[in-house]
Amino acid sequence: MTRYQHLACLLAERIEQGLYRHGEKLPSVRSLSQEHGVSISTVQQAYLVLENQQLIVPRPRSGYFVAPRKMQPPVPAMTRPVQRPVEVTQWDEVMTLLDGRGNKSLTTFGGGAPDITHPTLKPLWREMSRVVQHNQLDVFSYDDLAGRPELRQQIARLMLDGGANISADELIITSGCHNALSVALLAVCKPGDIVAVESPCYYGTMQLLRSLDIKAIEIPTDSQTGISVEALELALEQWPIKGIILVPNCNNPLGFIMPDARKRAVLALAQRHDIIIFEDDIYGELATDYPRPRTIKSWDIDGRVILCSSVTKTLAPGLRVGWIAPGRYHERVLQMKYAASGTNVPATQLAVAAFIRDGHYHRHLRRMRQHYQHQMETYTCWVREYFPCGICVTRPKGGFMLWIELPESVDIVCVARQLTRLEIRVAPGSLFSASGKYRNCLRINCALPASEHYREALQQIGEALHHAMEES
Amino acid sequence: MTRYQHLACLLAERIEQGLYRHGEKLPSVRSLSQEHGVSISTVQQAYLVLENQQLIVPRPRSGYFVAPRKMQPPVPAMTRPVQRPVEVTQWDEVMTLLDGRGNKSLTTFGGGAPDITHPTLKPLWREMSRVVQHNQLDVFSYDDLAGRPELRQQIARLMLDGGANISADELIITSGCHNALSVALLAVCKPGDIVAVESPCYYGTMQLLRSLDIKAIEIPTDSQTGISVEALELALEQWPIKGIILVPNCNNPLGFIMPDARKRAVLALAQRHDIIIFEDDIYGELATDYPRPRTIKSWDIDGRVILCSSVTKTLAPGLRVGWIAPGRYHERVLQMKYAASGTNVPATQLAVAAFIRDGHYHRHLRRMRQHYQHQMETYTCWVREYFPCGICVTRPKGGFMLWIELPESVDIVCVARQLTRLEIRVAPGSLFSASGKYRNCLRINCALPASEHYREALQQIGEALHHAMEES
Repeated sequence: MTRYQHLACLLAERIEQGLYRHGEKLPSVRSLSQEHGVSISTVQQAYLVLENQQLIVPRPRSGYFVAPRKMQPPVPAMTRPVQRPVEVTQWDEVMTLLDGRGNKSLTTFGGGAPDITHPTLKPLWREMSRVVQHNQLDVFSYDDLAGRPELRQQIARLMLDGGANISADELIITSGCHNALSVALLAVCKPGDIVAVESPCYYGTMQLLRSLDIKAIEIPTDSQTGISVEALELALEQWPIKGIILVPNCNNPLGFIMPDARKRAVLALAQRHDIIIFEDDIYGELATDYPRPRTIKSWDIDGRVILCSSVTKTLAPGLRVGWIAPGRYHERVLQMKYAASGTNVPATQLAVAAFIRDGHYHRHLRRMRQHYQHQMETYTCWVREYFPCGICVTRPKGGFMLWIELPESVDIVCVARQLTRLEIRVAPGSLFSASGKYRNCLRINCALPASEHYREALQQIGEALHHAMEES
Repeated sequence: MTRYQHLACLLAERIEQGLYRHGEKLPSVRSLSQEHGVSISTVQQAYLVLENQQLIVPRPRSGYFVAPRKMQPPVPAMTRPVQRPVEVTQWDEVMTLLDGRGNKSLTTFGGGAPDITHPTLKPLWREMSRVVQHNQLDVFSYDDLAGRPELRQQIARLMLDGGANISADELIITSGCHNALSVALLAVCKPGDIVAVESPCYYGTMQLLRSLDIKAIEIPTDSQTGISVEALELALEQWPIKGIILVPNCNNPLGFIMPDARKRAVLALAQRHDIIIFEDDIYGELATDYPRPRTIKSWDIDGRVILCSSVTKTLAPGLRVGWIAPGRYHERVLQMKYAASGTNVPATQLAVAAFIRDGHYHRHLRRMRQHYQHQMETYTCWVREYFPCGICVTRPKGGFMLWIELPESVDIVCVARQLTRLEIRVAPGSLFSASGKYRNCLRINCALPASEHYREALQQIGEALHHAMEES
């Protein structure tokens, strides 16, 4: 046995024994070479062997990491929500979850905040300071109703990455993606209308439907390929559906990217039934693979796709910079924005425009895509280690959310209540359904640091789940 | 005749002959003393004589100004809108008016922007820069759903000035006053509901009602004392009215402050008929007289008054910092805010909180109250000089808007269209009515500089009005 083979065996053994955890960083080449008194190239060869065995994975500029366990837990099956329009409920749980935001002593896995601590965000500070110091009149004045032109130009450039060729004049800036969806729904729908949604569907979107008295019909959705075209077609034939809300790229909460063929099939269906597609692209730029996936908007020929997005997940929520490409509803969206929300803060718009223009945005995205991928792998390892057997876990293609399905008998709403006593907050799956389904599921935000504190908190969640399974 | 009497006569003659215009600043005491070779005290005595004759008015730290002409134009009579609920129309004109915002070559009297050029605003820059540099995590993170606690504390203090004792926990921060009113209406009303409004009523409020499919019933309103309690009572007896939107302090567009007795009468009526009062206090702190007038909210004992306000008019629109004291609707307003608008920008909230805390806010208010009063006097002089005879003009008790009523035969909507060719924008009165009344009225924003440019533009409006009257 050569030296490097010997070293490889030794390391494989340590991984096997759990001395190096799944997802954990391995010692650097230099330190291993010193520790074992072998040459740098010997260590490199040993790592190559382990990499070929898929025991470890290299990460550019970060070193080598223990690979996730080969036995991935299965992914959740196609969902089966109630097949009729229902009124959205679940207010109280959502408000309780949000309540935790200000409370620093809570450990909250249920929220949607991104990681805002990365140094690639630093130029954004500089831009904010510069804007405040040098554009005082702009910063204090009423914004254009459609938003700052310099920002709209930059957003138009970004949208090309998703395949959509849209001019700055066709865009309207909003106070985040949620506000974009709000004015879009106000523009298109009346109270009492029915809108189709993926199931599970982000709870904020559900609450928005509720506040506007719009009924939701939940469509079966696959955790790897997205909404079922067949089920959608059946629903469209049966109910007077006004539009459909989709998160086709890096779906929240399931993490899938709809294959292009399915995106086009849904668009064709929308054209045939003359309905509107509300496309939520807020996570689209955080797809693990580069270049980013196409938007449905990119195939839109008759302005029926209303694309909503923001920098909330890619940069920072506190900026409140979102946008909407409202297609044929441009005038009406502008009216609804004026009437219901008003104009936006110019300062953050100007800073974001400069940040994109100067290339900082794509640099930051590159960093965050890699980072979140790594985070999700680490969290998946932890979940597998601490959570009961028999669970299903999504394999997200981007974003930073994991969706975990437990056996039907487990009631996460009860578990969540118990966890509150430990100052841990999770988002029970029932928040993601208009009809209260998915009580056996939960969503985990992997943008939180992969620190000892969060590992332990996840371990505590795991214990609570074990306990719940034994009781059920 | 003594020297000072001689000088006083000479100056009175010059005023009479129009050598010094109404509202214009007179020469300083020092320069007059040099010009006429008399002592400082002689000039001072002469000015005192003219002041006693009400020909001139002193302004602290600014000198003496020619008094507005003694023959004030009459104020508009009690309005007489249609006495039934109607659906709001007038979209297109409003959107055209707003279109002008970004266009620097337009002279726009129709907007609502305050004067943001005063040096008393400078500390706000410093605060903004400080916040951006030192509170980076706060600035990038999701805001608390109710808004930053430090700002809510300061707002609670401000509200004491209007007589309302409200804790920080009872307040919710919004993206401006308009957004506050939007979530308030969403919380209280359903589509198809009827809401009473003063007539005329700010066009933004009208559009908000329209976007939410709420019908408006316009109540006769006096330009000096506000809404007619009798007419409101009749309407309440006849229609199932859900609530009433009032701007009782420094009303937009009429400028009145409702006498306290009338405020209490309206509140008693609201209690008797169990309706909600939406109190818009956005101009309340810009009342000419100090201390500021009381809010209706200050007498509210059962949480039926929802107070909405912001710093948009007192500080700057680009901050998008508003608030709502939702009384009994606290939980529901919070839900509607979450669902329809989302959270706000923390950066501007933190800056405004510090600006108020350090006493800069009240200093700025003192300055602006005086400034706007002076501006409105100057604009009133110009209007009297350039506009046709037979007009009525409001005598605002605060804020910075003038409402001008021409003979019924004049159609300001047509005049406004003609003025567009001269790149001048005005707000025709019809925007302030759900049913298209007040086509013979217009609102003028007096926060614009009292410069030669705006004087000439006002003169051009006057000429267009003369022309329209001759034709009619």
